[in-house]
Amino acid sequence: MNQLESNVPDAALRNVLFIMCDQLRWDALGCSGHPCLETPNIDRLAGKGVRFDRAFVNGAVCGSSRMSYYTGRYVVSHGARWNQVPLEVTQKTMGDHLRELDVRTVLVGKTHMRADEAARKRLAIPSNSPEWMFLSECGFDAEEHDDGLHPDARVPMDLPYNRFLRSQGFPGDNPWHTAANSVIDADGELCSGWLLRSAPFPAVVPDELSETAYMTDRAIEFIRRAGDDRWCLHLSYIKPHWPYVVSAPYHDMYAGEAMPAPNRTEAELKTTHPVIRALHRSRIGRAMSRTETRQLVLPTYLGLVKQIDDHLGRLFSELEQLGRLDDTLVVFTSDHGEYMGDHWMGEKDWINEEVVRVPMIVIDPRSQADNTRGTTSNELVEAVDLLPTFVEALGGENETRKQWLEGESLIPVLHGERGTRREFVVCEADWGFLEMANHLGETKEPRLRRATMLRDERFKYVLSEIGSNLLYDLDEDPDEQHDRFDDSSMGSVAADLHEQLFEWFRSRHHDTTFSDEMINATSAPGRTAKSGIMIGYWDEEELSAGMRGELY
Amino acid sequence: MNQLESNVPDAALRNVLFIMCDQLRWDALGCSGHPCLETPNIDRLAGKGVRFDRAFVNGAVCGSSRMSYYTGRYVVSHGARWNQVPLEVTQKTMGDHLRELDVRTVLVGKTHMRADEAARKRLAIPSNSPEWMFLSECGFDAEEHDDGLHPDARVPMDLPYNRFLRSQGFPGDNPWHTAANSVIDADGELCSGWLLRSAPFPAVVPDELSETAYMTDRAIEFIRRAGDDRWCLHLSYIKPHWPYVVSAPYHDMYAGEAMPAPNRTEAELKTTHPVIRALHRSRIGRAMSRTETRQLVLPTYLGLVKQIDDHLGRLFSELEQLGRLDDTLVVFTSDHGEYMGDHWMGEKDWINEEVVRVPMIVIDPRSQADNTRGTTSNELVEAVDLLPTFVEALGGENETRKQWLEGESLIPVLHGERGTRREFVVCEADWGFLEMANHLGETKEPRLRRATMLRDERFKYVLSEIGSNLLYDLDEDPDEQHDRFDDSSMGSVAADLHEQLFEWFRSRHHDTTFSDEMINATSAPGRTAKSGIMIGYWDEEELSAGMRGELY
Repeated sequence: MNQLESNVPDAALRNVLFIMCDQLRWDALGCSGHPCLETPNIDRLAGKGVRFDRAFVNGAVCGSSRMSYYTGRYVVSHGARWNQVPLEVTQKTMGDHLRELDVRTVLVGKTHMRADEAARKRLAIPSNSPEWMFLSECGFDAEEHDDGLHPDARVPMDLPYNRFLRSQGFPGDNPWHTAANSVIDADGELCSGWLLRSAPFPAVVPDELSETAYMTDRAIEFIRRAGDDRWCLHLSYIKPHWPYVVSAPYHDMYAGEAMPAPNRTEAELKTTHPVIRALHRSRIGRAMSRTETRQLVLPTYLGLVKQIDDHLGRLFSELEQLGRLDDTLVVFTSDHGEYMGDHWMGEKDWINEEVVRVPMIVIDPRSQADNTRGTTSNELVEAVDLLPTFVEALGGENETRKQWLEGESLIPVLHGERGTRREFVVCEADWGFLEMANHLGETKEPRLRRATMLRDERFKYVLSEIGSNLLYDLDEDPDEQHDRFDDSSMGSVAADLHEQLFEWFRSRHHDTTFSDEMINATSAPGRTAKSGIMIGYWDEEELSAGMRGELY
Repeated sequence: MNQLESNVPDAALRNVLFIMCDQLRWDALGCSGHPCLETPNIDRLAGKGVRFDRAFVNGAVCGSSRMSYYTGRYVVSHGARWNQVPLEVTQKTMGDHLRELDVRTVLVGKTHMRADEAARKRLAIPSNSPEWMFLSECGFDAEEHDDGLHPDARVPMDLPYNRFLRSQGFPGDNPWHTAANSVIDADGELCSGWLLRSAPFPAVVPDELSETAYMTDRAIEFIRRAGDDRWCLHLSYIKPHWPYVVSAPYHDMYAGEAMPAPNRTEAELKTTHPVIRALHRSRIGRAMSRTETRQLVLPTYLGLVKQIDDHLGRLFSELEQLGRLDDTLVVFTSDHGEYMGDHWMGEKDWINEEVVRVPMIVIDPRSQADNTRGTTSNELVEAVDLLPTFVEALGGENETRKQWLEGESLIPVLHGERGTRREFVVCEADWGFLEMANHLGETKEPRLRRATMLRDERFKYVLSEIGSNLLYDLDEDPDEQHDRFDDSSMGSVAADLHEQLFEWFRSRHHDTTFSDEMINATSAPGRTAKSGIMIGYWDEEELSAGMRGELY
């Protein structure tokens, strides 16, 4: 590690490369044991660091999950409970914490953050001020902000990727849609990639012009240009998220392979749980549970992952040549998984492992991490852990950020010092914003259309605000096929986890305008008397004792 | 009610007069049955409206309680958990809600609000901007902002009340202290009113120059000057809060009276509860439990209340003359009570009725309220109910403010239409900021030094984060002398209330950047397809059905 003429503390890394995929399941990688998909570049990354095999997101949909990654806070604390829900302007993000360490937090790709325009107006923050730019970009310095979903109904006027595609010979108002995310079908017709029937055909654009290639190029350009500046680069791919189309040759790379059988049983369809039943009956649940979806869409999904792996190979080569692999913490993860027909569901928004468990690979290049290189960790890890990990890796303190950061740094695990202090992970799933909510008829207060999952080493407990609660014994039933909530043989397991979840709710830090330091300073013996608030003293003699801190 | 040439809806009132005392116990009024104190003016008010006999604050100390009154939100939602804890700039206050109804929200007196200076800097809100003036004054238009505690160690440079006292012949840097809140003791020495031994002597200033007189004058001046402008005036007295000194003749008006016996038993001193024991052992607990405190301080406390009643008499006469009693909702309440040695405690900060129960009188002058005039209501009422009551009284909608306002309007009760929908009240008590916290030795995370009380019609359940939980049966034990938490004869009462409290925690609206309307609009069938996010459609035919809202 070259730290000549640097202000970075000896023990600190210079940079963080924070790579995120969108909707990538924990098991859709070679290194996590996929039966046909090979991801040699990501696997090589795992060989250099620690692969956390039990890593979980804190929200079951893009927006809420990402805000947990970016703020280091649980969903109930940051409040952006679903896509398009604005993040409160008072929520500090990665950019806030890392700029205090003189590190630029740079974005290439997606955040899915919605700025709180109502608060901006109320507080009269000029929309062209640096502060609003910072807030409205979720604390990132937007090298290239592209949320990746650009349907014709709401195409940004000046999307750089569309300009790029036009420059490459793909004209039109929205070549993102008509070229990068559409196909020519068997009849020779242009067909939108949104439609599932498009999945087996190659995207109109070639691989080197795909979103994945383009974002990788932007990241490489940034890293080259940054030189010795310190940075935290968030390379945030939209893929393998919908639309399910991929350029040749990835479109039929897995078409002939035997896909793993879906994790679902007929018994599941007999559930009386109103939310699960509605998820089954929803358009998306039905579409993704069709046999032909499995046959046509899953190979394309795997092709999209393979494409990411290939482009990451380019990025990693570049980093190596620049020497950046020696001074950069590298993270590879996802914002949530995807049902892909498992449990008769599609997409995300609910609490099964297919959704809430994600890939998580972390490489610390320092010698202290040599003993854990190439290992797999079974520690329970959460999205909120990454920001404290970055703070510590870059030489900052987490102790003074306790009212903000709710996760724990993974550095001690990477350095083989100890395991995490965590006994369980929590993920919050709001389904009330989904059209499927209409399958339930009248329910209580819209904002309580949600469930909270607590998962420990063995059990998964789901507190469902509507319908009964759920309990899975993951040792006995890793596929989550048997709800044991009403099973008397489970004894007090559900009640105990319920109580743990209550404690978890009460321990959240909604209130960030005060710190432990303020509490301790305020309660110091003699403090009130010294401030002149002389309550509880009979006379001058007692007051003198109070001033000396002897009467409290 | 004269509403000629007015834009106020027929059904709406023009104004709100929101009178608050500080540290006034629910039982320290004539109309609530005090054995020696007479408060004819407040009693007359009760005769014109409804006296809520079971009204509770949501926080057990000034700052947190007041922020619940001013935001209409529970403490865990607004986050300002103790005195001097800044209120987040994103918390909407009374001033936000009422200005939407074209009503000025005006302050005369105390708010105990601390502005969030750190957020101001981060958001680059100019400190001299109208927006910051609004935020830093807690949404009030400060006719006279005076938090009433001005120890020499931190006297504001330009306190109007000090200027006033100087103009009246009381010189010095801080006549608030040396004149309004000091006495000449038996030895002819000037003695600070902070010291309890000062209680039996008259304040240096005469009654007509007291803080209570001065604030009443400011309120009267404002009301006269406002004419037909619509207003919500918060007249917020610092008294009967410490320092316990009062001008003649109030200083010895009750000196000869037999004071009611304190509510405490020797058995209470045997408690093993670490928090209660620490409250007993604290300086304030010990000071207020002395027999001489009861003898000397309680009469002064009653004198301070009597003084308020007399000055309110002046105010009410003025309102009557101006015709304002016909178009103004009038509220009289307090921010919390005072132990005054009951339970061997002093001050507040804990969860007994002496602290959490407050006077609450509400007068609606409209004819719809005629049937409830002069009645006493046993409905469970909370501080958070006032703001929705004001919104409704002034002609606004509460339905569209649901993500903000957590209480319920009392107008239906005042109009005799129905009771409240509330089954219990909640009050949160943080004691970690108190010097007494040092009596507990090491405890867990400082911010969890707190308790949450749930009180229903019969029981009071206290979830204490440190030490065991508590249960009182108020039917059998209105004095809260017998903790029944471990009493097996209580069956599942504690467990049931614990679960109710968990539901209450989960129903809180920390997240205010989205509304029920947004949830319902987002989940409308066909909405995603129409926005162009065409997830879950196999082909064009399905998409058409989706666009028609038929496939969800």
